[in-house]
Amino acid sequence: MSVQDNIVFILEIIGTVAFAVSGALVGIRKSMDIFGVCVLGVVTAVGGGAIRDVVVGIIPPNVFRDPVYATVAVLVSCLVFGVAYFRSFRSSGRLGKLYDGAMLLMDAVGLGIFTVVGVNAGIQQGHGDNTFLLIFTGTVTGVGGGLLRDIMAGVPPYIFVRHIYACASIAGAVACTLLYRTTGITTAMFAGVLLVLGIRCLASHYRWNLPRVRMEEQVTK
Amino acid sequence: MSVQDNIVFILEIIGTVAFAVSGALVGIRKSMDIFGVCVLGVVTAVGGGAIRDVVVGIIPPNVFRDPVYATVAVLVSCLVFGVAYFRSFRSSGRLGKLYDGAMLLMDAVGLGIFTVVGVNAGIQQGHGDNTFLLIFTGTVTGVGGGLLRDIMAGVPPYIFVRHIYACASIAGAVACTLLYRTTGITTAMFAGVLLVLGIRCLASHYRWNLPRVRMEEQVTK
Amino acid sequence: MSVQDNIVFILEIIGTVAFAVSGALVGIRKSMDIFGVCVLGVVTAVGGGAIRDVVVGIIPPNVFRDPVYATVAVLVSCLVFGVAYFRSFRSSGRLGKLYDGAMLLMDAVGLGIFTVVGVNAGIQQGHGDNTFLLIFTGTVTGVGGGLLRDIMAGVPPYIFVRHIYACASIAGAVACTLLYRTTGITTAMFAGVLLVLGIRCLASHYRWNLPRVRMEEQVTK
Repeated sequence: MSVQDNIVFILEIIGTVAFAVSGALVGIRKSMDIFGVCVLGVVTAVGGGAIRDVVVGIIPPNVFRDPVYATVAVLVSCLVFGVAYFRSFRSSGRLGKLYDGAMLLMDAVGLGIFTVVGVNAGIQQGHGDNTFLLIFTGTVTGVGGGLLRDIMAGVPPYIFVRHIYACASIAGAVACTLLYRTTGITTAMFAGVLLVLGIRCLASHYRWNLPRVRMEEQVTK
Repeated sequence: MSVQDNIVFILEIIGTVAFAVSGALVGIRKSMDIFGVCVLGVVTAVGGGAIRDVVVGIIPPNVFRDPVYATVAVLVSCLVFGVAYFRSFRSSGRLGKLYDGAMLLMDAVGLGIFTVVGVNAGIQQGHGDNTFLLIFTGTVTGVGGGLLRDIMAGVPPYIFVRHIYACASIAGAVACTLLYRTTGITTAMFAGVLLVLGIRCLASHYRWNLPRVRMEEQVTK
Repeated sequence: MSVQDNIVFILEIIGTVAFAVSGALVGIRKSMDIFGVCVLGVVTAVGGGAIRDVVVGIIPPNVFRDPVYATVAVLVSCLVFGVAYFRSFRSSGRLGKLYDGAMLLMDAVGLGIFTVVGVNAGIQQGHGDNTFLLIFTGTVTGVGGGLLRDIMAGVPPYIFVRHIYACASIAGAVACTLLYRTTGITTAMFAGVLLVLGIRCLASHYRWNLPRVRMEEQVTK
């Protein structure tokens, strides 16, 4: 296992933890029991990786072969549930704000890491010269886990309601793909993650608004 | 076709019938017309198998090659629709209870069978020595059809709202995987199905409750 | 690139445009911002093709390799958003009707084209003699993009609420599969598209109604 493999593995574990936290938080907010919270944590954490592997042709997906990702996701989900159950949520005043902050950060970390891990997987499978494929694969991997989480939990997908969500992932994938050819994949991955994190945090802090069509007559159904 | 292949095939057909009934029932409750009911029946019945095949690398999925599964699912869905249309639902008093009982049983049978069939598919594709892969593949196959059904119909997924749902599937997959190495796959599959059925029925009958976090302030959006 | 490849490519682009319009319209109706509208346009337009490719074994999917489909979808989505933002939607009186008409037509064109393109992909991958596989693949490809659109946007899937939706796709796939063996694939594809379009328009115009079970007691949850 080379140094680069180790870095990719560590990034994957951090992304798995972050997405598991975000999935567990959504489950807790939806008043799911501890099993539901774990299921949502695991789906969010391994969903992006499973999509990535099917799309680039690693079948069965790596998250199905190696138990470490699912194990980490279950442990993290239980931990988040335990903290929510026994301590933090007693102080209900700051609850909403704390929840929103944790969700934003964890989801952004997961989004950034899985985006660059998706780009890296495309490169490893021999598609290093197809810029578009790497960007698309990276974006699908990045947004996939969170999208599965939101669809399964029945909440409006983050990708539509949050500021500049898919865009941050695309920017990270583009940066990672272009940098990889000049600086090597390690630097490219870190730059990609930081770019996604930066865009998401800035967009959220300054509440960047984008034009939308106001429908004058509300059309029901 | 060996005896074991026959047993797997018969199990698959029973699972297909059970999941088709559960899909048709959800469609009827959502007031879908006969085509919608059939679509939901087919998706529930073949969805788990399609996911199983993509995940273990049988492409195109077997349910796409062999018309028997989709045909059975359509016939069963039409039959359920016909019964609901012409007879049972006139006696509306016991409707809710009958519906809940039928859903519970059919969904549990489908869950149990597709779980062990998923484990078996992993073994057949040469992953017999990877315990984790077999358990994960079995669970994904088991819960996949019902999850697609609930997401498409826009109802809260069974996997989150029912007692110990994913857990029953995981237990069945573990039992099937471990037994297969000592007793052979046939015994292991039957034991797995019975275990899933038993856990689901007990959990439902005794309304096993699991801890969940009560959110004091209801956060909207 | 043969004449037939060119025809398939042109059909795919028309289908991509049609589905991108339908996705963008759903996004606008759900008051998404311009990025959300683009995401929904792209998912609807490339979703069917991605499902088709995974199912028939073209991995990575062609829409991930060739940027033209996603680029067209983004441009079309932005154009639809621009028109909605600056002009048409000011005259709000006819809005609902115009929206419904555009959705019906665009969705029907996409449904028809992706159905026959799915059949053709199955044939190209060497499954030309498996009638059932071609029909199933065609139908899944046809309804896949619209289904992803509706699930992600959180609206009741077209496939359940519109008249004879899946049925039109199945009819088109059957016609295309059977004709391909006598008239060749080009004629078969055009016939399939026209059949789907015809069935959808007739069903919508005459509001063909199908039996459904009226539930006397409304069961909540």
